[in-house]
Amino acid sequence: MTQHFQRPGDPLFTQRTPRVVAAVKLHRRRERDKAGRFLAEGPQAVREALAAGAVREIFVTEDGHARHRTLLRGANFSVVTDEAMASLADTVTPQGVIAVCDLLDVPLDAALARAPRLVAVAVEIRDPGNAGTVLRTADAAGATAVIFAGDAVDPFNPKCVRASAGSLFHLDVVRAPDAAATLAALRDAGLRTLATSGYGATDLDDLADDGSLARPTAWLFGSEAHGLPDDLRDAADAAVRVPIHGRAESLNLAAAAAVCLYASARAQRH
Amino acid sequence: MTQHFQRPGDPLFTQRTPRVVAAVKLHRRRERDKAGRFLAEGPQAVREALAAGAVREIFVTEDGHARHRTLLRGANFSVVTDEAMASLADTVTPQGVIAVCDLLDVPLDAALARAPRLVAVAVEIRDPGNAGTVLRTADAAGATAVIFAGDAVDPFNPKCVRASAGSLFHLDVVRAPDAAATLAALRDAGLRTLATSGYGATDLDDLADDGSLARPTAWLFGSEAHGLPDDLRDAADAAVRVPIHGRAESLNLAAAAAVCLYASARAQRH
Repeated sequence: MTQHFQRPGDPLFTQRTPRVVAAVKLHRRRERDKAGRFLAEGPQAVREALAAGAVREIFVTEDGHARHRTLLRGANFSVVTDEAMASLADTVTPQGVIAVCDLLDVPLDAALARAPRLVAVAVEIRDPGNAGTVLRTADAAGATAVIFAGDAVDPFNPKCVRASAGSLFHLDVVRAPDAAATLAALRDAGLRTLATSGYGATDLDDLADDGSLARPTAWLFGSEAHGLPDDLRDAADAAVRVPIHGRAESLNLAAAAAVCLYASARAQRH
Repeated sequence: MTQHFQRPGDPLFTQRTPRVVAAVKLHRRRERDKAGRFLAEGPQAVREALAAGAVREIFVTEDGHARHRTLLRGANFSVVTDEAMASLADTVTPQGVIAVCDLLDVPLDAALARAPRLVAVAVEIRDPGNAGTVLRTADAAGATAVIFAGDAVDPFNPKCVRASAGSLFHLDVVRAPDAAATLAALRDAGLRTLATSGYGATDLDDLADDGSLARPTAWLFGSEAHGLPDDLRDAADAAVRVPIHGRAESLNLAAAAAVCLYASARAQRH
């Protein structure tokens, strides 16, 4: 936590205050990677970030300070103008509080060393909202790691942080550019690798029936536009389709991830 | 289907052509209800609308005509300028084809007369993207009716139509402003009414275990911001919670709907 340099009566931080300027740059992935920091916006995310010990500094508006007193108790923070908050925030109607956090992804090896029993792997997902939803859904289903594999969106993108509704701070988040190597490492760690595909040879219900979902499992999800790359689907232990009972062409990513991860959660607990 | 009034060499329809002006108005709910029509944008939606016999007229750009020849074969259409398409379309990068369709919602009684075995009820959902995802997920899970109850978003909102990925044309879509009366009608029709709630007394896994999900079921989903109204939750046959195994506060609406509807689909087919 940085010091709170403002004293009562000091002027508010503006868009031109160097620390605000530095924080605004964190909207760009390159700057996040360079600084090793990212932004967590809104009271829920800031609360989870504080609980995770990830917070470097907090900016609040005067209004945000009044609204989030409990959250800010004991924390150091700097009061900023509404204009400064507008430039820091990703939302159209900011909630008045935003934290600069340390990037908290872990290496793949470290995540696998904890012997996870349920892992979600998002492969080449480009939409930050989808990425955040996968984090939230995986967390709810009891997965303990989410891996962003291949040329995927940065999970520390502000829209992803927001869509994750705090779950980004609950799980091991891994960035693994080499998707094929990730698959091999998952298998070496004793996880069964299941590739989701609308044309998968294995029906999810059959897997649930034969009891094999109770094993430690890594689910691979592709982007909504392109699905999983063929080579990765073929390299997985099985290609699994969620049954489509009606006339929909497919499920969206969030729905498919929920059905698959919850099928595993149920099997692993029975 | 209206006549194709243009002949080869005729000028393209512009933003000021009366039929384009009339169609652009359909972005507003009041105008949709007044005209009894709505817009379906992009080749997938137009294809499903044509298959459903719901199309009144089609607008294409010259580029869209070149790209979607197969889709447009045998259909009457009018060629519009890119500017006219931009005003008709809801997307930033329109796909060059849009259809004016008849509103195709059915009265609650008509939907219930078909003795549906799986129904999704979206109560006071305001977000059109969520509404469309519920339609898509319900269709995939084999539900045959989706009811928008209470003060809900209009399912014929362009964003909802798009998010439904064609499923709007596959299901019985019902608009039912009186949510309490809807619940009573569902029960009278022999459907078990299950209210989703993070604090529900019944765990979804227990329902799946006791076999009762095999019965004809209507699932009630509330908005992500507010959940279901208390009185409706209490009036349902059971309040059901999707188990949260990790530290997430909740699932988002799309994920919760997918898990619940697929649990029913599985039970009803076993």
